[in-house]
Amino acid sequence: MTEPSPAEFRNLVEGIFEQVPFVREIGLALHDFNFVEQTLSGRFVTKPELIGNHFQNILHGGVIATALDTVGGFTAMVAAYQRMGGAIDWDEKVQRLMRLGTVDMRVDYLKPGRGEEFICEGSVLRVGNKLVVTRMELRNEKEELIATGTATFLY
Amino acid sequence: MTEPSPAEFRNLVEGIFEQVPFVREIGLALHDFNFVEQTLSGRFVTKPELIGNHFQNILHGGVIATALDTVGGFTAMVAAYQRMGGAIDWDEKVQRLMRLGTVDMRVDYLKPGRGEEFICEGSVLRVGNKLVVTRMELRNEKEELIATGTATFLY
Amino acid sequence: MTEPSPAEFRNLVEGIFEQVPFVREIGLALHDFNFVEQTLSGRFVTKPELIGNHFQNILHGGVIATALDTVGGFTAMVAAYQRMGGAIDWDEKVQRLMRLGTVDMRVDYLKPGRGEEFICEGSVLRVGNKLVVTRMELRNEKEELIATGTATFLY
Amino acid sequence: MTEPSPAEFRNLVEGIFEQVPFVREIGLALHDFNFVEQTLSGRFVTKPELIGNHFQNILHGGVIATALDTVGGFTAMVAAYQRMGGAIDWDEKVQRLMRLGTVDMRVDYLKPGRGEEFICEGSVLRVGNKLVVTRMELRNEKEELIATGTATFLY
Repeated sequence: MTEPSPAEFRNLVEGIFEQVPFVREIGLALHDFNFVEQTLSGRFVTKPELIGNHFQNILHGGVIATALDTVGGFTAMVAAYQRMGGAIDWDEKVQRLMRLGTVDMRVDYLKPGRGEEFICEGSVLRVGNKLVVTRMELRNEKEELIATGTATFLY
Repeated sequence: MTEPSPAEFRNLVEGIFEQVPFVREIGLALHDFNFVEQTLSGRFVTKPELIGNHFQNILHGGVIATALDTVGGFTAMVAAYQRMGGAIDWDEKVQRLMRLGTVDMRVDYLKPGRGEEFICEGSVLRVGNKLVVTRMELRNEKEELIATGTATFLY
Repeated sequence: MTEPSPAEFRNLVEGIFEQVPFVREIGLALHDFNFVEQTLSGRFVTKPELIGNHFQNILHGGVIATALDTVGGFTAMVAAYQRMGGAIDWDEKVQRLMRLGTVDMRVDYLKPGRGEEFICEGSVLRVGNKLVVTRMELRNEKEELIATGTATFLY
Repeated sequence: MTEPSPAEFRNLVEGIFEQVPFVREIGLALHDFNFVEQTLSGRFVTKPELIGNHFQNILHGGVIATALDTVGGFTAMVAAYQRMGGAIDWDEKVQRLMRLGTVDMRVDYLKPGRGEEFICEGSVLRVGNKLVVTRMELRNEKEELIATGTATFLY
């Protein structure tokens, strides 16, 4: 295959995003995607299986970590793709992007994960020829900041 | 209710552990529990829904984070319970333990999450009258260290 | 002593900031202070003792961590002070603020610490009646983002 | 220069360690070095300039972070050196080791930094062909665990 257009690249990213089994399990879907600013967001709605605390009806911390890791990872993928630029051919880019993995992540749980729906946004703090560092923020439908995170990815 | 015996306390912890909706979703169950050493572990087996990368058939980072957060949280609960000691009555202890929540967590993904079954162990690094800090390690059935984490809990 | 005015409180914070021995060693001084927005910054200039890598003439990571921890801690102090409010008397507030300590911190080193002078800014992510979580950013005189951090403080 | 013997390599590491300006400022010196187990430790003694809190006479968090970052970095250097193996010649190894830098670090402050002297030990959690992840522990002369950390290094 030859290098995709930005629109084709977005479709590819969306396709991969929505095929990750555990991401489907959570119900997380690609929400927004800005190729130029290298930001990306995902959205999911509350459902009983995602609860971590019966009594308080709040999301499990693992659901929040999953959203942050996933959104951070796809944000990193977009940044890494652009960083590789024109000198690397498309097949090699695909190979490297498919190997992109989380090295480490910090999550800060700022407020109980209460809400009907959640948006998780990612942005890039650093992009090099091996590593990408991203920040992520999770908000509920009232725009309350529920959690933030920082993660390092290797590609 | 009056203060439980250690055996009763273990049963209570196990009961709560297995009723957390998202923990059931992952299939994570209490595996081992050492009241004296304040260590605790959980176990789960691979299933298709937990996969994060089709091509490589490895666990999603969010599954690993969920196991670490859950096991760390229950380890913290055991430590906090003992720390509160005899001066605080059982009802107040229950109130405080039910509010125990993760403040922040770091996860280090050391190897791809490949395996048939996984054991996640937690131990205590610090226990105070407000905070507990725990370390967690996730290994597969070959005893390979897949991930480690450190988390801070408030109660 | 009775409750200070905001201007007196700023002077107190500045006085304490500049008496911390290791902060003096670095040459870090209070730069800006916004009582209402709960932001605070410190400033220091490069000097030979702060270098971590001869060949590249860049700051040691420990200098950056020191600036982030210090600025985060004083930002947390301002937030904790306001959070305690009118119901707690000044003497008790002082007692609690003097015990304020860092629980954990993550630092992300985004670019080599090259520059003539550095500004480190802190802001509040969460403030509760026991904990404060802050974010910190360190920039050089060209406004390049050198490092970011997140820290949790107990008071 | 040709490939050094393990003893020569240890001397080189020690020489570099003790020439880092900010490490000298702290008074941190190489203490122990195990080439086979890839562990390394540093030692320093308290002095007035290292204090963070007058009233309590405890180390500044930045001193602890400096010790952890330094010891982690040199541990990573030893691991990276061995990982590069025989296929890469000595000059290229030196080039890569001189560029080794901290990507991110988490520090957990477990107890106040009280003591006469401190030992900081590093060990390897992961070593790849680009990254090394290390754990660090800081203890005082009573063997009390004061702080732990985890850091990711790129080379």
